[in-house]
Amino acid sequence: MRDAVLPIGVFDSGVGGLTVYRAINELLPNESLIYLGDTARVPYGTKSRETVIAYARACTGVLVDQGVKLVVVACNTASAFALETLQEELPVPVIGVVRPGAFAATVRSATGRIGVIGTPATISSGAYREAIETMRPDAQVFTQACPLFVPLAEEGWTDGEVPEAVAREYLANLRAHEVDTLVLGCTHYPMLSATIAHVMGPGVCLVDSAEETARVVRDTLEAMDLVCDDTGAPHLFLASDSPENFQKVGGRFLGRDINPVQWIDLGVCPKIPS
Amino acid sequence: MRDAVLPIGVFDSGVGGLTVYRAINELLPNESLIYLGDTARVPYGTKSRETVIAYARACTGVLVDQGVKLVVVACNTASAFALETLQEELPVPVIGVVRPGAFAATVRSATGRIGVIGTPATISSGAYREAIETMRPDAQVFTQACPLFVPLAEEGWTDGEVPEAVAREYLANLRAHEVDTLVLGCTHYPMLSATIAHVMGPGVCLVDSAEETARVVRDTLEAMDLVCDDTGAPHLFLASDSPENFQKVGGRFLGRDINPVQWIDLGVCPKIPS
Repeated sequence: MRDAVLPIGVFDSGVGGLTVYRAINELLPNESLIYLGDTARVPYGTKSRETVIAYARACTGVLVDQGVKLVVVACNTASAFALETLQEELPVPVIGVVRPGAFAATVRSATGRIGVIGTPATISSGAYREAIETMRPDAQVFTQACPLFVPLAEEGWTDGEVPEAVAREYLANLRAHEVDTLVLGCTHYPMLSATIAHVMGPGVCLVDSAEETARVVRDTLEAMDLVCDDTGAPHLFLASDSPENFQKVGGRFLGRDINPVQWIDLGVCPKIPS
Repeated sequence: MRDAVLPIGVFDSGVGGLTVYRAINELLPNESLIYLGDTARVPYGTKSRETVIAYARACTGVLVDQGVKLVVVACNTASAFALETLQEELPVPVIGVVRPGAFAATVRSATGRIGVIGTPATISSGAYREAIETMRPDAQVFTQACPLFVPLAEEGWTDGEVPEAVAREYLANLRAHEVDTLVLGCTHYPMLSATIAHVMGPGVCLVDSAEETARVVRDTLEAMDLVCDDTGAPHLFLASDSPENFQKVGGRFLGRDINPVQWIDLGVCPKIPS
């Protein structure tokens, strides 16, 4: 029982994973959560497998040092490239967002024609395709990298002329393939879901990994008898770059003020006054 | 005379500084050049002053270790935040891109109404405003951060509906202020110059720091008697993330194949096979 009061660690390249943080917090309101955003090196989605693995090792190492009972890799790119490595190396269970998102898509699709959008790195990894085809061998998977969606979401341009035009360009092929389900394979994309849904048209189900990932976290904690029953569990936010930037952009994702945010030393920059 | 054959080091957060590399190479074709792109941590333009200074120190330290005779900080954000620190700390002359760009704008503007566009970090630093107002006290400076221009340029979306719509949104205020000169205060922006020129309309002069920076490099080398007269000087490209990504995106900037590119250890990721 002693371990159940330990926090859950949630790691992302930046603020996007706050959508996963929120889903876990809503499903498991008694859990203490530590969120780490690697804002000094964001984004991961345009970087190489080796670099993403190195970054993910450093970030999850910090969470383990903080004494977490479980690690959630909320970043799709880190999940796609580094999950197996982290599961082998870390002393606690590690849950990514790719398999939960893939599972939700296979369950919801009627026709088996499933689209996946994500960063260039996530798409090129083939992780979603592999997970979906393993879970549902009759599925046909169509993928598209959408690199401009992350900066659009971070800029707060989530609807209107520009996001519509960008979405029309990226999603044209997926529309032509008549997918009935579309996986939002990047934690930033739910910010653009209204625009994406509008461009895809009616009858296409958008799948966001966050809620399904939260369910996997709950199931895993229950299976290990690690669910926390305390109330008022503390939350902690860590950022590898300036806490102020994290608060500003992260607040937009979470829809509320984030306070306090602590700077965390990943060995990449000097101490930043908070 | 011995030092004249040493290379010039050019540092940027990624591939954007290749526009500066090219301008130096065209003006000084006998010089050996070492280009370092910190692609494992790109972009800098959304990060804090402290982090950018730390990254700039690490990158220019590598160039000094390679024995360069002069360092060019081709990244506007690094120039805005780190130039003075680097000039104090490094044992060789250091030239940034902000002052050359500011100078070119003050010379070319007829009305003194000068616009500056750049990354959020460059604009918030106030470096261009300060440089322009020092050089031309009667100038009126209007600035605008354009964070989506970098991902647009890296995606290769340099003209058409999306870049036009983004440019109209960002540039509306500068148009309303009737600037007659616009500084492209980020090395990525020349890729979008046709679209920017079209949106700004006729009579607005676009200033790119690259050529003016190359002239300052030449003048500095001449003053120090360090101009190289050899022909066939070797060039070297270093990247902190995968050489393949650098070649792919960098080739678009340079308009030719970049080969070979070496991975360089900045202590942020393990060895990447090249």
